[in-house]
Parts: sequence; C-alpha cells; structure tokens
Amino acid sequence: MDEDRPFDFSILDRLGAPYRQFDAGEKVFLEDEPGSEMYMVRSGRVDVITYGSVLENVRAGGIFGELALIDDGPRSAAAIAAEPTEVVAISKPAFLAIIRDDPQFALRVMGLLATRIRRMNKDV
Amino acid sequence: MDEDRPFDFSILDRLGAPYRQFDAGEKVFLEDEPGSEMYMVRSGRVDVITYGSVLENVRAGGIFGELALIDDGPRSAAAIAAEPTEVVAISKPAFLAIIRDDPQFALRVMGLLATRIRRMNKDV
Repeated sequence: MDEDRPFDFSILDRLGAPYRQFDAGEKVFLEDEPGSEMYMVRSGRVDVITYGSVLENVRAGGIFGELALIDDGPRSAAAIAAEPTEVVAISKPAFLAIIRDDPQFALRVMGLLATRIRRMNKDV
Repeated sequence: MDEDRPFDFSILDRLGAPYRQFDAGEKVFLEDEPGSEMYMVRSGRVDVITYGSVLENVRAGGIFGELALIDDGPRSAAAIAAEPTEVVAISKPAFLAIIRDDPQFALRVMGLLATRIRRMNKDV
C-alpha cells in the first residue's frame, strides 16, 4: 500500500464534494451527533476528541469521521478545528465512487480502523 | 448498504482464490502468527478466539482475518474451525480486485471493523 502517495483531490472535485471552512476552535461535529459523511482535511488541522482528551491530530490529506460513514451510527468523538481549516465532505456515494476509481483508498481508510483496533487491543 | 445480498463467489473463482478445508478443531491460524490474507467461510463455522474466549462465530458468507490483510501485522486472534469447514483465502491483490468490481464489499469489511471499534469503545 502506497501510504505516501498524496491523495488526488481532483476526483472529489469531479464528484462535486462540498468544501467547508472552519475557524480555530469551531466544531466540525460533536460526539453523539448523527452523521453519515466523513471528511478529508484539505488544509489546517482537526483534533478528534473524546473523554476530554485528544485522540488524534488530523492534518492535510488525513481523514476523520469515517465510522459514521460506514455504519450511519452517531459520532463516536468530537472533531474540532485547531486552526483555520478547510475540509472536504465525503458522502457514502462519493466514497464508493472513489474506491471504484482507486481501491487503495479503501485500504487506507481500513488501515486507520485497523490501527485503532490494534491500539485498543493493546490497552485491554 | 445491502448487507443481506449474498456474496457472489464467482469473482473469487475468476481470481483463482484458493479454497481450503479444515476438520472440526483444526486451526486456520493462531494468534501472533504472521499473515497477509483474510478468509471467507464457504461452509461450516470458524470461531475467532482470543484470551481464551470466543469473540465471534463466523458462518457461511462471513469473513475473518481482515486485520492482517489490511496492515500485514500479526494475527490478533486465533481462528479455529468449529466443524468441518471450507474457506476461501483472499489476498490483498484479490481484495483490491473485488472492491474495484463491487465497492460495497469494502463497506462490508469496514462495517465489521466499525462494529468492533464501537463495541470496544463501549467496553472502555
């Protein structure tokens, strides 16, 4: 898997995926909110926060919010812009179009999930 | 996501994915073994076991072993055939070919991972 290859944003532009801007400190979403899209950071930084501590800093090219995209469940953590930030929203149909075009992208999202599971296994 | 649509095994046959048979009680793999393929149960049942307890019963159409396929890490649990069982091995190239053909399959595997993460979050 070529983790280092920068993501080609042109597919998101072709799909008409919406861009959203956030100021430092502004929420992208809060824990337990309903949600069905994930986000990719275009510029800036988003902190993923649960139980009052930062789980992850997500920077340009990084993704967050993927759990709700996958299973339409409530947000399992909050996502807060840590500085002026631009993200692209990826809906389920857009996600399916991306991975049809670039199956490695699915492996990349799955890699995030796998890392989280292995980290939690270690903490058990 | 159409969870109930049975998986079309013909793509695995076209890809030449290898079938393997196991007797009741036989191991498919043990915890900490290296591994890079996942498995789909064709018939029978596989128990996924860690810390001496059964995490999951995987039946026909179900998949297991996906973590090692994703990140090439060691097996995080053991997989033991609970009865005479046939599985198909899915390598990373086969997985990429499947999801290019059927992107929903990626969502199905991701759904498994998401369920596991949410269960672990609840246990924390």
